[in-house]
Amino acid sequence: MTRIFKHDILPLIKERWSPRAYSEEKISKDDLYAILEAASYAPSCFNEQPWRFILADDEKTLTKMRSILYSGNLQWAQKAPVLLLIAAKKTFSLNNEENFWHMFDTGTAWGFLSLEAQKRGIITHAMGGFSMSKARKLFKISDDYEIVTVVAIGRYGDISQLSDDLKQREHPDTRKDISELLLNKGE
Amino acid sequence: MTRIFKHDILPLIKERWSPRAYSEEKISKDDLYAILEAASYAPSCFNEQPWRFILADDEKTLTKMRSILYSGNLQWAQKAPVLLLIAAKKTFSLNNEENFWHMFDTGTAWGFLSLEAQKRGIITHAMGGFSMSKARKLFKISDDYEIVTVVAIGRYGDISQLSDDLKQREHPDTRKDISELLLNKGE
Repeated sequence: MTRIFKHDILPLIKERWSPRAYSEEKISKDDLYAILEAASYAPSCFNEQPWRFILADDEKTLTKMRSILYSGNLQWAQKAPVLLLIAAKKTFSLNNEENFWHMFDTGTAWGFLSLEAQKRGIITHAMGGFSMSKARKLFKISDDYEIVTVVAIGRYGDISQLSDDLKQREHPDTRKDISELLLNKGE
Repeated sequence: MTRIFKHDILPLIKERWSPRAYSEEKISKDDLYAILEAASYAPSCFNEQPWRFILADDEKTLTKMRSILYSGNLQWAQKAPVLLLIAAKKTFSLNNEENFWHMFDTGTAWGFLSLEAQKRGIITHAMGGFSMSKARKLFKISDDYEIVTVVAIGRYGDISQLSDDLKQREHPDTRKDISELLLNKGE
């Protein structure tokens, strides 16, 4: 299950994965705002920058953010010193029309965020297992925004803290071969 | 209109933007497959890897791909030696259920792709201005895939080839301040 790379790609991309063994060590404001700034330089349609964030790095907001996580994620993500909710503005500010690319562009920002974190020795793990309706209510997020993911942010901790099941999964995942990603050219 | 960075973020992120003055110089297969491999290492929900590509780097496929672009994009993107269509698989292979994150995760892959290209001195510009219905028909793309964007890929050329209007726009765009990206915490 080792990742085997065919090309000389960015070390940060090679090394990034989504661990679960978080340390409780705090993350500095400088690190946090740097990774948000990196995210903000993603390209987007009409430079709309549809990405939005709710940053939970204080105990009060963390408690709220933890309360929206499903138990499978909570068991490991509760240790993370930072939880970041990512949302995506559904319409263009320019004309209020639907932005078809709001999720796509927000994904690009998350990609930049994850690599800036990796550069700083900070691990990230995006979760889909949480209650979007509870998030919307608790954080009073208007319907103009799609709620996308909650990202655990922190430093690597001790794998022994994980359940046996999660220990088994605590490794970088492999990927499909590029040949499986290429659609045919319609011939 | 100069980008001003508050934090020490990845130079590749700082330097990346979406130019239009492409050179016709060819891009090597090694470079192309490296940037696709970088894209493939994006994280995704259940490691689904919903991103799919149609790579146009031969004259026949380029002609087809150019034919789906709207004229505003075609005027500059026709010079690009590579056009890459990015699509997103809508369902999980695991259970055929709808993948809420298919666009988001595909955006992450595009982000990784753009930075690997940047590292190699290759410029990228994602376009929304093209006919998705024509693309679906010409390339026989099934409804299982959302057609997302066409990316121009190449090396920087000569700005003098651009129309006066596009010359004016040929610079990196600035970004919102982070404070504008933070939703309130629902208090």
